[in-house]
Amino acid sequence: MRIARFTTGDEPRYAIVDGEPGHEELIVLSGDPLYITGKPTGERVPLSDDVRLLAPVIPRSKVVCLGKNYEAHAREIPARGPAAQVPILFLKPNTAVIGPDDPIILPAYSQDVQLEAELAVVIGKVCKDVSPEAAEDYIFGYTCANDVTARDVQRQEDQWFRAKAFDTSLPLGPWIETELAHDDVEITSRINGKATQSGFTRDMIVGVAHAVSMVSEVVTLLPGDVILTGTPAGVTTLHHGDVVEIEIEDIGVLRNPVVRR
Amino acid sequence: MRIARFTTGDEPRYAIVDGEPGHEELIVLSGDPLYITGKPTGERVPLSDDVRLLAPVIPRSKVVCLGKNYEAHAREIPARGPAAQVPILFLKPNTAVIGPDDPIILPAYSQDVQLEAELAVVIGKVCKDVSPEAAEDYIFGYTCANDVTARDVQRQEDQWFRAKAFDTSLPLGPWIETELAHDDVEITSRINGKATQSGFTRDMIVGVAHAVSMVSEVVTLLPGDVILTGTPAGVTTLHHGDVVEIEIEDIGVLRNPVVRR
Repeated sequence: MRIARFTTGDEPRYAIVDGEPGHEELIVLSGDPLYITGKPTGERVPLSDDVRLLAPVIPRSKVVCLGKNYEAHAREIPARGPAAQVPILFLKPNTAVIGPDDPIILPAYSQDVQLEAELAVVIGKVCKDVSPEAAEDYIFGYTCANDVTARDVQRQEDQWFRAKAFDTSLPLGPWIETELAHDDVEITSRINGKATQSGFTRDMIVGVAHAVSMVSEVVTLLPGDVILTGTPAGVTTLHHGDVVEIEIEDIGVLRNPVVRR
Repeated sequence: MRIARFTTGDEPRYAIVDGEPGHEELIVLSGDPLYITGKPTGERVPLSDDVRLLAPVIPRSKVVCLGKNYEAHAREIPARGPAAQVPILFLKPNTAVIGPDDPIILPAYSQDVQLEAELAVVIGKVCKDVSPEAAEDYIFGYTCANDVTARDVQRQEDQWFRAKAFDTSLPLGPWIETELAHDDVEITSRINGKATQSGFTRDMIVGVAHAVSMVSEVVTLLPGDVILTGTPAGVTTLHHGDVVEIEIEDIGVLRNPVVRR
């Protein structure tokens, strides 16, 4: 099932996405299915230009990210210090989240902002210290994420706040897929239609269930929390005017323009 | 004015704290003064054992922390890599927040959890790219914070998520003081009544207004966001059964027991 958050000009609403690619229809729900079983209202809205899809979830608490979770990518980004754990865990704030077609605004303090295509896991139930075996019971669904990163700043600074927490640095969407064979889907990214990254979730060092378990050893996970599972190799610099696409097999395409103000 | 969040067994409420130390009374408000001007309801509650003070704010978005913002402390904690910026910026999640008298639970994966007494700034209005000169207009008030840190983990790992984001790693309280001469107050901490840290906010490398400005260059700050301004020298290891106190002149004392499960 695909769950979208959308607006036709008024308050954001939730919907089940129905139909084939290019002919989708939104079955409007009465609430946020993450918290309450949103019942269909009876209204159906064609996914036309009058509909603006929004980030399918706005985390009320946190986004926890895995860094260096694909070996080929771990080799292409800067290492600092002698004994980095793999994968690395870090936070992004909810103010970084944008939705489909929202602009990624390049921060003035960076000259090398790069895309990172990632599978995002949306948590559905409160959990702490969950085992890898039980972790899937706490997952609501999956969406596409772009862990936009100021690579030059990341190289220069110990902690990644300025490199990875800035406004618009976390596009999410286009919707949440609640069923996904998450251990073997393809992740690709494109800039202006040209392929940049390509990978498969089977190449993650730590898989989805283990990632949820690892994070839950540290923090209580709440409904709506998001875990980003790392990016495959091929990260590439973004420029004003670019259009970035993140595509995950069986989920869809997350598309965002890039703007330097 | 001192704003507290408290419960007498039912839903959390907000109040103005009135009276001299040891004889405080809570003037109960009708709402959360951070968002709406909470009007006094007419009810007054003596600050007795029947009242449990809660964390005075639960950030809806983020807690941004300054690391290495007092020179004497910067020298006592581990440096990684050749070119650390000072101060360092990093995030803590809202799931780390606890209130006065709530237990700090030592994470199983650390054998050296330390206290860090800090002045916390509570943001009152939305801001982005605010100048140091204008920053104070966006501050709601100030409270005591303990940036509890797993020092052994911090030494071993590149990013500070496991070292600083765990549940109960952010005691806040006892209340928010809306007026404070924040550029020259004393910060002290004690373990079981014995002095550990002592410092003055005048020794911060980056002061309160500059800190808010720096953070707002990266992220949009929202009402209820918290900025921790760094800790003075003298950080000390916590053990099961300890009682930690953070005291900031003209605010009050934040006291928490320490538990290892």
